[in-house]
Amino acid sequence: MPYMESNIKSKQNFKGENEMSPTLQQVIEAIKPINQEVGEIAQQHINNLTKPLGSLGELETIGVKLAEITGKALPEVSPPGVIVFAADHGIAEEGVSAYPQEVTAQMVLNLLSGGAGINVFTNAVNGMIEVVDVGVKSDIDCQDLIHAKIAWGTKNFAKEEAMTRDEAVQSLEIGMERAKAMIDDKGAKLLIVGELGIANTTVSSAITAILTNKEVRSLVGQGTGILPTALDFKASVIEKALELQKPNPDDAIDILQKVGGFEIGAMAGAMLYAASRRIPILLDGFICTASALLAEKLAPNVKDYMLAGHQSAEPGHKAALEALGKKPLLQLQLRLGEGSGAALAFHLVEASTKMMKEMATFETANVSKEIEI
Amino acid sequence: MPYMESNIKSKQNFKGENEMSPTLQQVIEAIKPINQEVGEIAQQHINNLTKPLGSLGELETIGVKLAEITGKALPEVSPPGVIVFAADHGIAEEGVSAYPQEVTAQMVLNLLSGGAGINVFTNAVNGMIEVVDVGVKSDIDCQDLIHAKIAWGTKNFAKEEAMTRDEAVQSLEIGMERAKAMIDDKGAKLLIVGELGIANTTVSSAITAILTNKEVRSLVGQGTGILPTALDFKASVIEKALELQKPNPDDAIDILQKVGGFEIGAMAGAMLYAASRRIPILLDGFICTASALLAEKLAPNVKDYMLAGHQSAEPGHKAALEALGKKPLLQLQLRLGEGSGAALAFHLVEASTKMMKEMATFETANVSKEIEI
Repeated sequence: MPYMESNIKSKQNFKGENEMSPTLQQVIEAIKPINQEVGEIAQQHINNLTKPLGSLGELETIGVKLAEITGKALPEVSPPGVIVFAADHGIAEEGVSAYPQEVTAQMVLNLLSGGAGINVFTNAVNGMIEVVDVGVKSDIDCQDLIHAKIAWGTKNFAKEEAMTRDEAVQSLEIGMERAKAMIDDKGAKLLIVGELGIANTTVSSAITAILTNKEVRSLVGQGTGILPTALDFKASVIEKALELQKPNPDDAIDILQKVGGFEIGAMAGAMLYAASRRIPILLDGFICTASALLAEKLAPNVKDYMLAGHQSAEPGHKAALEALGKKPLLQLQLRLGEGSGAALAFHLVEASTKMMKEMATFETANVSKEIEI
Repeated sequence: MPYMESNIKSKQNFKGENEMSPTLQQVIEAIKPINQEVGEIAQQHINNLTKPLGSLGELETIGVKLAEITGKALPEVSPPGVIVFAADHGIAEEGVSAYPQEVTAQMVLNLLSGGAGINVFTNAVNGMIEVVDVGVKSDIDCQDLIHAKIAWGTKNFAKEEAMTRDEAVQSLEIGMERAKAMIDDKGAKLLIVGELGIANTTVSSAITAILTNKEVRSLVGQGTGILPTALDFKASVIEKALELQKPNPDDAIDILQKVGGFEIGAMAGAMLYAASRRIPILLDGFICTASALLAEKLAPNVKDYMLAGHQSAEPGHKAALEALGKKPLLQLQLRLGEGSGAALAFHLVEASTKMMKEMATFETANVSKEIEI
């Protein structure tokens, strides 16, 4: 398998853990099938709670799913851990975004000072959050930032490969490392990965086009807010770039290398690690889901550990969710990224676990069960 | 107006407040138009938060709406107050429900001991909850229950009028009283009304058919879980009953009198009171929304104070929401009632207020605004 060729651990720039970090290959092999037996036990318990059979709809489906993922009939998801990976994209110089590239670094600082949407929504669910610079174009001097910069942004994939193959593997490994710290050290019971990166809906459209075999034009959207008239331009930039790069649709690392980006690789790596630890992954928007498609290409059963938080306003997100076979909890026309949609949906996932733990059963509450009519 | 003829205050059975309660007419007259000027101020503030313009989708719409309702540019919705009204329905003897009628009283006790879905979901958002017996068929001996029983269930509207006109007005007034206690005495900043009442989807289908002028057959659903084959039977029971009763579609109190039910009238009264105090109302499922249609018939601008929490699995709910012009926050195939769907959606409404209060603005965070491409 192509990703096996590299075992580099380029950790000189980021806070490494003392113990040896697992390799990508080890993490992928550690992802086991979900536990359907425990799921059935959870389903029986849910059927016995004081409510009409099936009347909590999707909340019941989530409960069973969480039991399958965690292997626990009464699963826990709190506290959730949010990791926001930030990186820049060379493709931004083609003029595909509504914001200047400096905004990535400015938004990193805004997150670190607690003023971004993801801060507010993470606090609202008592979650933990960290921000990782995995490839922002400028140097950010802030103690609270996790420094894991691979390079000062990717290269412009309309002209050259976004990164080297080693860098692609490195981005995955940084994601694994940070998920390991969030889960094993900090105790997160559910993982949310978010991102900051001007032009990353462009990269995500490219990845989704490659992995779903759909037309680029059917996938591109407004991103942070380009005008409808700029959509055709965005699509043609991607189409031409893909024509030049010809990424191998069967090789996730080749795709990362050719189109980017550093934060997208890191998100995929984090998801792989979470799955290897039986920790549920709550997907955010388009970029996160494109990254999930890459993770799935590396380890097909990682998708069984994912729940879809929401479906965004980006048309490509719908296609990516469908390819993963995921039904979103929310559809609120969100398109902020950062992990914000997942953080907003988290309350419903937690409510599902509370349903299982706190509701009375027909027996204990002495309530009559249904009759057939 | 027909409801003016009655001013009875039959409070002998329930915990009245010391001060004089407002009459239905007074409450209706106190409902003022929402404040669009404050909504515009809120919209400008939201546009200036550190996120792409409009990128928090429906959350932004809710924020503006809450500002219009409360008249405050930074509205508050916590703590929410949940009032669950319980009552029985004579129509249950026609065999329209999957559960025996005793379940209403059993579930009241389950709620009082904290084991029902609404308890769990209210606790999850630090809400307040009370349960009001407004017409359960049996007597329930429990100190924590609010005793406001109008009668021991409604009469079977397939055979006779569900209640008297005085009782219909009384149900509205009890709802007003309880909303007053929840808002003015306990300090609820947002109102959720829920219900318990075997066969009340049948009553709600009848009300929705009358007020939306739609075919009964297009509105009836599974309720607590009848088999698909029983749907035709449920529809024909309602059709025949409406043929007999001929409620006046322009007179909400006549509709309540003819088809019921006590908890549905109380919910409508509670909503009217909340609107008179500029308190947002978060709608639950089908029964709650049928009740909202009655409230709107009594005071058309009450609907401007409502947000739709979710759209349930009941087909009639979609029709009722459309008639009110409301878009649901959640669509999770819920059909539990009790206020549970609204309690689950509350987190998003609160998140909207937190977005407005806690996110940084472009100026304070020193983040560049968008450019046009």
